[in-house]
Amino acid sequence: MTKKRILTGDRPTGSLHLGHYVGSLRNRVRFQEEYDCFFIIADYQVFTDHLNDNIQISKNIREITMDYLSVGIDPKKSSIFIQSEIPEIAQLTMYFSFLVSIARLNRNPTIKEELKAAKIKESEMSYGFLGYPVSQAADILALRANIVPVGEDQLPHLEQTREIAKKFNNVFKADLFELPEALLGEVPRLSGLDGQKMSKSRNNAIYLKDSKEDVAKKVMKVFTDPTRIHADDPGHIEGNVLFEYFDAFSKDKEEVNEFKKEYKKGKIGDVLLKKRLGEVINEFLDPIREKRKEYESHPKLVEKILEEGIEKTRKEAGKTMEMVKEAIYK
Amino acid sequence: MTKKRILTGDRPTGSLHLGHYVGSLRNRVRFQEEYDCFFIIADYQVFTDHLNDNIQISKNIREITMDYLSVGIDPKKSSIFIQSEIPEIAQLTMYFSFLVSIARLNRNPTIKEELKAAKIKESEMSYGFLGYPVSQAADILALRANIVPVGEDQLPHLEQTREIAKKFNNVFKADLFELPEALLGEVPRLSGLDGQKMSKSRNNAIYLKDSKEDVAKKVMKVFTDPTRIHADDPGHIEGNVLFEYFDAFSKDKEEVNEFKKEYKKGKIGDVLLKKRLGEVINEFLDPIREKRKEYESHPKLVEKILEEGIEKTRKEAGKTMEMVKEAIYK
Repeated sequence: MTKKRILTGDRPTGSLHLGHYVGSLRNRVRFQEEYDCFFIIADYQVFTDHLNDNIQISKNIREITMDYLSVGIDPKKSSIFIQSEIPEIAQLTMYFSFLVSIARLNRNPTIKEELKAAKIKESEMSYGFLGYPVSQAADILALRANIVPVGEDQLPHLEQTREIAKKFNNVFKADLFELPEALLGEVPRLSGLDGQKMSKSRNNAIYLKDSKEDVAKKVMKVFTDPTRIHADDPGHIEGNVLFEYFDAFSKDKEEVNEFKKEYKKGKIGDVLLKKRLGEVINEFLDPIREKRKEYESHPKLVEKILEEGIEKTRKEAGKTMEMVKEAIYK
Repeated sequence: MTKKRILTGDRPTGSLHLGHYVGSLRNRVRFQEEYDCFFIIADYQVFTDHLNDNIQISKNIREITMDYLSVGIDPKKSSIFIQSEIPEIAQLTMYFSFLVSIARLNRNPTIKEELKAAKIKESEMSYGFLGYPVSQAADILALRANIVPVGEDQLPHLEQTREIAKKFNNVFKADLFELPEALLGEVPRLSGLDGQKMSKSRNNAIYLKDSKEDVAKKVMKVFTDPTRIHADDPGHIEGNVLFEYFDAFSKDKEEVNEFKKEYKKGKIGDVLLKKRLGEVINEFLDPIREKRKEYESHPKLVEKILEEGIEKTRKEAGKTMEMVKEAIYK
């Protein structure tokens, strides 16, 4: 039996951080055993909300590829590819653009939310912003992916992919596209060091590529319990980023439980715990760093992995395109 | 000095007729001496208003190519290409989609008129319909065309191309795209046989590929002077399709002037004139038919001409794409 195919990925807006690890990378490493995995680095989509930000896309693509590889994405099992290097995706987007109405795209609730989050006025929304779900449909259907891991908020986009697939099959009287399914797992979120949403712009993230020293420094800024003034005040665990991180990255659950007990009693200080957290995160990052170092010292290897991923993707997208053209031009 | 480059073309919705000849083909044959000509067969754009019409795109592409060749488009001087065979056009459309706002596209007056003409409700306008000017910008700028022959109504589209070119240069700090100019000639219109707008759906057109017999039959339906009941009633020349066609296709201006004089006096009958018009149009079409026959009997030659046109276009579009990627990913 052939494995089902999964498509997921990231926009190359910056390096990946611990939040990405907890929220998605960890799962992707597991997916590799069960699924035929394709990881897209969606560079067109950088321009939806970063058109004027002078993002170093090319550098970020390499960084993200190394992030993937260093956490355990195995290029022998999975394909990593760059969206803009697959012309079939752009070509499919052209055909799909006639299968969905402006009114329908305007009804997508996630588009509205994303517009607000990006602080773009509705009067300045670009054609490509509104059409993001059309382009995403092309990403997914070019590869005839069966499974798309999504958070709740991304479900409206996947629904549009399914509608476009159905419409294509209908209009061109072809039994071409299977409808992809959402893999709607919980997407665990990791708070930023300051307790806010982790993001590059807030400067509250620990990156997979951060050095030991950077991590040791960054953890000292962790948001703990604002009600605790003195080291011997009893502390709270709930909403305490310190313990959120301990829970996420410590291998020694007993130690963590001990810390929590003492913390509640006011018997252990923030500074000591922060230092220990730095060690715990560094222990977690050490094997990732080691793997990354290999790739950093072999940039040609990274290029080769991307080239092979692109080649494999183009082969699959090419098959799709052949079927699409057969259906349209028969 | 290198020749300026011109881009123009047709959608493959059907074969070309005498109206196309008078309105554009005739000029295009002349352009070949002065310009580096690229002729696009815009197949994506069939779906703006013919999504459900089961148009035989592939067949039409070949018919139009033969129409071009038979009127004197010379594949040694000019390139004929199929839009969907140039992936760079689709890729450029992706990048350009972020350079123009939905609001701006909605303000394009020609889009509104075309929507009305196509009898599409605004609530059902497809994403690709609204984005037609973005795709057209990609057609033009992929080839870095300097000149685009347009009718008055198409000026708003070309203005969007110019805006997109400027915006690209600005956003990506590149001096890449020159602004293409409109070649705003008069676009002479030829009425349909019934005096209405000539169109396939009205079944009032003489096609370049029509046989002698078809032409002889069709001219008998020509709309003449509705006020003239008897052959010896004095007739009117103004708005008389018979004389519009004589003026457009007869080489014997003296004969036509003679006919007009006699017609006004009621000294010559419609039937005789219609028969003569059939001969005149057939004389005009004969050399076109002869050339066409050559190509019809060598379908591989037509394929080869298309392949070469596509190859030459891809080479130029490839150069553009290299510069675009250099500008975006530098």
